[in-house]
Amino acid sequence: MPRVAAIIGSGAIGAGWAARFVLNGWNVRVFDPDPATPERVHAVLARARRALPGLGDVALPAEGELAFCGLISETVTGAEWVQESVPERLELKQTLYRKLQEHAGEETILASSSSGFTPSDLQATSNNPGQILVCHPLNPVYLLPLVEVVHSDKNHPDRIDRARETLAEIGMVPLRVRGEITAHVADRLQEALWREALWLVRDEVATTQEVDDAIRMGAGLRWAQMGPFDCARIAAGPEGMAEFLRRVGPALNWSRSKLTEVPELDAGLIGRIVEQSEDQSGHLSPEDLEDRRDRNLVTLLRGLASQGWGAGVALRRQDEARAERRAMPRRMADLDDPARPVLTVDRAVPLDWLDVRGRMIEARCLEAFGHATDRMLEIVGSAPGDGAAEAGFLTEESHIRHLDTAPAGAPLRIDSRLIVGDGTRMHLWHEMTSDGRTLATAEQVLLHVEFATRTACEAEPAVAEAMRRLARAQAALPAPEGAGRALGAPREVTRH
Amino acid sequence: MPRVAAIIGSGAIGAGWAARFVLNGWNVRVFDPDPATPERVHAVLARARRALPGLGDVALPAEGELAFCGLISETVTGAEWVQESVPERLELKQTLYRKLQEHAGEETILASSSSGFTPSDLQATSNNPGQILVCHPLNPVYLLPLVEVVHSDKNHPDRIDRARETLAEIGMVPLRVRGEITAHVADRLQEALWREALWLVRDEVATTQEVDDAIRMGAGLRWAQMGPFDCARIAAGPEGMAEFLRRVGPALNWSRSKLTEVPELDAGLIGRIVEQSEDQSGHLSPEDLEDRRDRNLVTLLRGLASQGWGAGVALRRQDEARAERRAMPRRMADLDDPARPVLTVDRAVPLDWLDVRGRMIEARCLEAFGHATDRMLEIVGSAPGDGAAEAGFLTEESHIRHLDTAPAGAPLRIDSRLIVGDGTRMHLWHEMTSDGRTLATAEQVLLHVEFATRTACEAEPAVAEAMRRLARAQAALPAPEGAGRALGAPREVTRH
Repeated sequence: MPRVAAIIGSGAIGAGWAARFVLNGWNVRVFDPDPATPERVHAVLARARRALPGLGDVALPAEGELAFCGLISETVTGAEWVQESVPERLELKQTLYRKLQEHAGEETILASSSSGFTPSDLQATSNNPGQILVCHPLNPVYLLPLVEVVHSDKNHPDRIDRARETLAEIGMVPLRVRGEITAHVADRLQEALWREALWLVRDEVATTQEVDDAIRMGAGLRWAQMGPFDCARIAAGPEGMAEFLRRVGPALNWSRSKLTEVPELDAGLIGRIVEQSEDQSGHLSPEDLEDRRDRNLVTLLRGLASQGWGAGVALRRQDEARAERRAMPRRMADLDDPARPVLTVDRAVPLDWLDVRGRMIEARCLEAFGHATDRMLEIVGSAPGDGAAEAGFLTEESHIRHLDTAPAGAPLRIDSRLIVGDGTRMHLWHEMTSDGRTLATAEQVLLHVEFATRTACEAEPAVAEAMRRLARAQAALPAPEGAGRALGAPREVTRH
Repeated sequence: MPRVAAIIGSGAIGAGWAARFVLNGWNVRVFDPDPATPERVHAVLARARRALPGLGDVALPAEGELAFCGLISETVTGAEWVQESVPERLELKQTLYRKLQEHAGEETILASSSSGFTPSDLQATSNNPGQILVCHPLNPVYLLPLVEVVHSDKNHPDRIDRARETLAEIGMVPLRVRGEITAHVADRLQEALWREALWLVRDEVATTQEVDDAIRMGAGLRWAQMGPFDCARIAAGPEGMAEFLRRVGPALNWSRSKLTEVPELDAGLIGRIVEQSEDQSGHLSPEDLEDRRDRNLVTLLRGLASQGWGAGVALRRQDEARAERRAMPRRMADLDDPARPVLTVDRAVPLDWLDVRGRMIEARCLEAFGHATDRMLEIVGSAPGDGAAEAGFLTEESHIRHLDTAPAGAPLRIDSRLIVGDGTRMHLWHEMTSDGRTLATAEQVLLHVEFATRTACEAEPAVAEAMRRLARAQAALPAPEGAGRALGAPREVTRH
């Protein structure tokens, strides 16, 4: 029974929430009086469909259903989660919550995307204030993992926990904010920087392009993986944090009066920013800018996942949880029928796996086949582990046939067979398909060696036995088409 | 004749500069009275040797020589560039510059890493103020590209240009700061955020961990690829920047008094930060933290390069310049001897191409071989280009033998041969070596097709002719060992 989320307000934030919920298998109902709502939400969903499914290494659940409702009652009734993302006007929100609460179930979580108002602000005129929380995301909601969870003393801890669990289940990283302050945590930090940026442009010290480059060629790169306190810790070095802070502390008080005043966004400054921003990025359409941003974010996030760091840790954890829910085989005992090929990869094509022509990059194919091989190793009990082992399987050869391609977000699965399996040698066959179409095949030969000397040696008896069992069971399958071919053997070529 | 850089002061920043100059082929002389200087500089250089050479796709020049000098005179005489990175004390720096200028040539650029002082501050007591500029980098200097170039009206435009060119040549992205203000641009932006972070910890709204996560799970990811003005442009959406700014402007003036005051770093706050930072990252040694940071930054930067965006654009530009300087062949006419294998890849192993055991990841091998194939296509005149072409070569098969591995930063070259080349089919052989050791070989078969239908068709006559010429010239080479083998063909296996 799919879970139901109600989305109230469908600007960029609301539409982003709708996309994230739908792509995580929830049925989603959207309410927004603006007649452009379906078009806007579908545009965001199309973008999210390309970016989110392939962000991790395990497929998302089947998409939920998306519906547009004309009444709050039909939107909210039966919904487990209601996400409010209407304009930042307190009375508007308070009135809305009273209306939502006429139809929301007792257990329903009413979450506000509000960047400025506190839960107490939003709860002030409600009869059931404990239902209302703040769950404040960043744009694009379907990609950036951070969501700040803010509560008042009227929210029960169980509800707060349930909210955080739900947000984690849809792939987010909930940050519990300890107090109620305007702009919470993330936006206060961003706004401090934004205010300084405005001063720099106002005082003609930098253009909008130069401010942006000062960030994205410098501290922005650092901040994608470590925040200001970890950066300070590294800067402190052998001196240590305490001494470092004592030393740099006084600099905060230098007469930098501008750092602490609020610049006025008058017509002159607005005009200058508009003009400079147009010079900077006017050559890209709004859609192009969002396309580039999404590709960049997917690349950055997958990079952090490959390093097991920062936001990437959350991605890996989500992959583990999804693999569990999809009951992907992890050991011999998980194989329903060892005589059948094993499902080793079940994912979607990442946004950054395609070249300029929209074709899957060959090296990325091998990356996916590498994951399939790792899964087979895990199944026979010889997982790569943490690198401490002295012996294990090394890949000696890979032979890949590149047959077809699939677009970003398309499903991608690999089914694998153990062609030869004894205590020393593993010969694998992998078939990569998307919706039944074969995209590529790969053969890999691995040898069990002592890593230090690269000398062949027998695997542990349990592993050797598992390999023999699996190879025997799968020996009855017909020989895979294309296996064992030498590269470049003549074949039929269709000509003009 | 190698160029000479003098490094005055060898803390993290000075040592980082030394590493970047040395790895870009400059001879470097370091002056710092601290007896721990050589140990410290060598530690930073070791780290940089793993991270910087493989950051781009083209090898750096041969390393320069590193020397430690006991006198300013011998450090500075004959140096083209002098980088000063001593503690932030104005009189100390001013005295130092008078000393440096006793020995610096007239054309020598005296650059200060100062984060706080302006060029006018530093020039105030000099007889030759126009020699002194500010070139302010970020830590780690050997990885982060941003360097702010700040000048006064006493600096000649030619000198400023020369400084920027030199910085670009050593792989940095110089940002010309338009005025003289304390902390320039980048640090003002960072400090605004830092000040807010201190308030949040002081007021117990967030711990150091929570502040850092609020950044690196959210805006930090955005800022690695787009700065605050581009992010605002996207947020403005169809509303447009002007209307967006008018709408959000007033929020800056809300009573958020804390946003505009300077927090006092008293003993209590220092103690709290030290304790929370220890909780957050005390489980990692300082070396581990820097190792992880370097791997993360390399991954993020190479990701942006693969997307042709932000800091990645600079990396690609630097690759182009290095490929030119190394005279890597780009077309048939560049081949000194078409009968010899062609040097198609000349690079170093990136820090993030290794698995937990320090072995090169197979998919990354194929990534390098993909670059080699792209270079061969370019040489015969069939470059992949911008994706607009309707026909071209598609890779049909890849066969890779994985033989050995090399550590991060080690040289990596690929020499390629055209085994078969006619108007329709290209059969390539690539050999990957590091210091003469064979790491891997690859065969690739490509077919010239109409992309839309994947139907074979003849390449343009010039391309077909170039392919035939090259294949004929190289036919006299002995057959490559291992070419044309079917996967898994029996071979000698050394056993325990």
